[in-house]
Amino acid sequence: MTTPTTHHFLIIADGQFGPLTSKTANSCIRYFPERIVGVLDRPEAGKTVADVLGFGGPIPVVGDFAQGLALGPTAVLIGIAPAGGQLPPEWRGWLKTAIDRRLEIWSGLHTFIGDDPELGALARAKQVRILDARKPPADLPIADGRAAEVDAYVLLAVGSDCNVGKMTAMLELRKALVARGKKTSFVATGQTGIFIEGWGIAVDAVVADFIAGAAERLVLQGAQGNDIVLVEGQGSLIHPGYSGVTLGLLHGSCPDGLILCHQATREYIGDYHGRDPWVKIPPYRELLEIYERAMAPVRPTRTIGICLNTFDMSDRDARAEIARATAETGLPATDPVRYDPGPLVEAILTAAA
Amino acid sequence: MTTPTTHHFLIIADGQFGPLTSKTANSCIRYFPERIVGVLDRPEAGKTVADVLGFGGPIPVVGDFAQGLALGPTAVLIGIAPAGGQLPPEWRGWLKTAIDRRLEIWSGLHTFIGDDPELGALARAKQVRILDARKPPADLPIADGRAAEVDAYVLLAVGSDCNVGKMTAMLELRKALVARGKKTSFVATGQTGIFIEGWGIAVDAVVADFIAGAAERLVLQGAQGNDIVLVEGQGSLIHPGYSGVTLGLLHGSCPDGLILCHQATREYIGDYHGRDPWVKIPPYRELLEIYERAMAPVRPTRTIGICLNTFDMSDRDARAEIARATAETGLPATDPVRYDPGPLVEAILTAAA
Repeated sequence: MTTPTTHHFLIIADGQFGPLTSKTANSCIRYFPERIVGVLDRPEAGKTVADVLGFGGPIPVVGDFAQGLALGPTAVLIGIAPAGGQLPPEWRGWLKTAIDRRLEIWSGLHTFIGDDPELGALARAKQVRILDARKPPADLPIADGRAAEVDAYVLLAVGSDCNVGKMTAMLELRKALVARGKKTSFVATGQTGIFIEGWGIAVDAVVADFIAGAAERLVLQGAQGNDIVLVEGQGSLIHPGYSGVTLGLLHGSCPDGLILCHQATREYIGDYHGRDPWVKIPPYRELLEIYERAMAPVRPTRTIGICLNTFDMSDRDARAEIARATAETGLPATDPVRYDPGPLVEAILTAAA
Repeated sequence: MTTPTTHHFLIIADGQFGPLTSKTANSCIRYFPERIVGVLDRPEAGKTVADVLGFGGPIPVVGDFAQGLALGPTAVLIGIAPAGGQLPPEWRGWLKTAIDRRLEIWSGLHTFIGDDPELGALARAKQVRILDARKPPADLPIADGRAAEVDAYVLLAVGSDCNVGKMTAMLELRKALVARGKKTSFVATGQTGIFIEGWGIAVDAVVADFIAGAAERLVLQGAQGNDIVLVEGQGSLIHPGYSGVTLGLLHGSCPDGLILCHQATREYIGDYHGRDPWVKIPPYRELLEIYERAMAPVRPTRTIGICLNTFDMSDRDARAEIARATAETGLPATDPVRYDPGPLVEAILTAAA
């Protein structure tokens, strides 16, 4: 897969561009803003990305696809999931225009653009690549424990819930470890990570029997030439909708250590706002025991640190929560985006030594 | 989906027909022998099914497809997975002949026969149905806990490993509960169960994000008009290859109770014979705690009994092991195929009351 560094992207986030509503778009903006020429979102047209998100600088938000094309993209990146899962008719028109002009399409949707009869045929006729990041490889194995045999130190991010900052935490730690001279890979297991890294497998999109096999293959690949492998986590063992993905990733990647990620103000699993609060997030100590116990029969592992996402807390509250996490677990903790990732970097270097 | 009672099947088990090598074929023979006209297996041709399996009576084993067709089947059922996963050229010829003669094809393979360009096209041209039991519905939901709200008592089989007898245990319990006048459904979650029951979803074949959603849909369907829902289990929480499927099934089905299934002589997870024994099966008490703890954050459940598969033990050893399971856990235990399922039936009736 082409890496993002070879492209200039126009991001489609129409109708949903915002700090909490366009996770894929926002992560791409955070990690390769220099490669993004514009964002298409009619409601926010005329603003800059920084106006809308609070980061991302002067990248323009446009309200018209032709205006977006005038910014000179070489690829269109779908940065949100359309409501209802189906491609809106307008999007179809935009994508046809883009393919017509030989722009690559990068998509993380569950519905594969390349399999769409009209868009797929047009792309083949125009010899334009469509990168469906969620499309799994055809030849995945059943996991058989080979991830446990790599020489590199393998660390998996696990979480209290979806969307608590597992990917971001691992990317920040990778940056810090590389700065310390460690050969460190980030192993992408979801579509946004794949967009950022240029390779990976969306483990939530593989056939259920092959979740662990996909994780195993990724670890083997990420370990090549590296001393430390940071595996992007997915979901949560206590999230009733996605827990199977989480356990398959845990057992398939056979991690030497775990980093527990949590958004500090979240009390309940967050995807169930439509109904009464359902699954309560347990205390730190209990959470990490849930993960360590789930791994124990297969291969013991231990949690070596805690990453907190404190974006919605005051500095004082955030620091107090970080101290509390350490007090309750005896583990180093920090918000690696907001504060010095040092305590976790030291923990990883010690564990990997 | 047509139920088995409307068909007469010729089973393909070529090269693999035997007590331990043709699980799907053998289960079909156990549960609807009166609907099976013959088994195709060249090595065992000329014998009866009972000669090969020890049960199944005088159903003939044939060594030639034409001979099989002469037995008058209305459908061909693929009863084994071909080595390597690809359709052997000879099978392709047999299936073409079968479709040509307007016989339905029932398959539980991961590779869908209906998607094969040649066989799929022929079937469409001949208006012959191909039932790919593992093919998931297109519109599965993300689980959101609705399975917890059904009035019926929902019981899930969980196991120490794959292939320990979870499906068979549930089918025996269903028979006994129906005999006691209870409206009881068996919810099939794998291809063999689907063949037996005529409906269900192979949860190991759905896209990973939808494992729990598939389980939820099945429970809602199985609960309609029934007092007790027996959900076929899959895999094991300690099986590193398939644990994700198991946890998704557990969280999606929100069971009121669990039945723990184990093959009493098995010490290690059994799919890893090619390598050193890897995952040791823990004692009964620990096993059921692994399941109850995995469910606890979502919705507490408890194990109400133990089903042992003692097929390879003497009567004395089997009875001793059953007594030991009860002594270690305080739960009723039995081998419901070999002995009276009564103790488990009583436990279910008490729990469901």
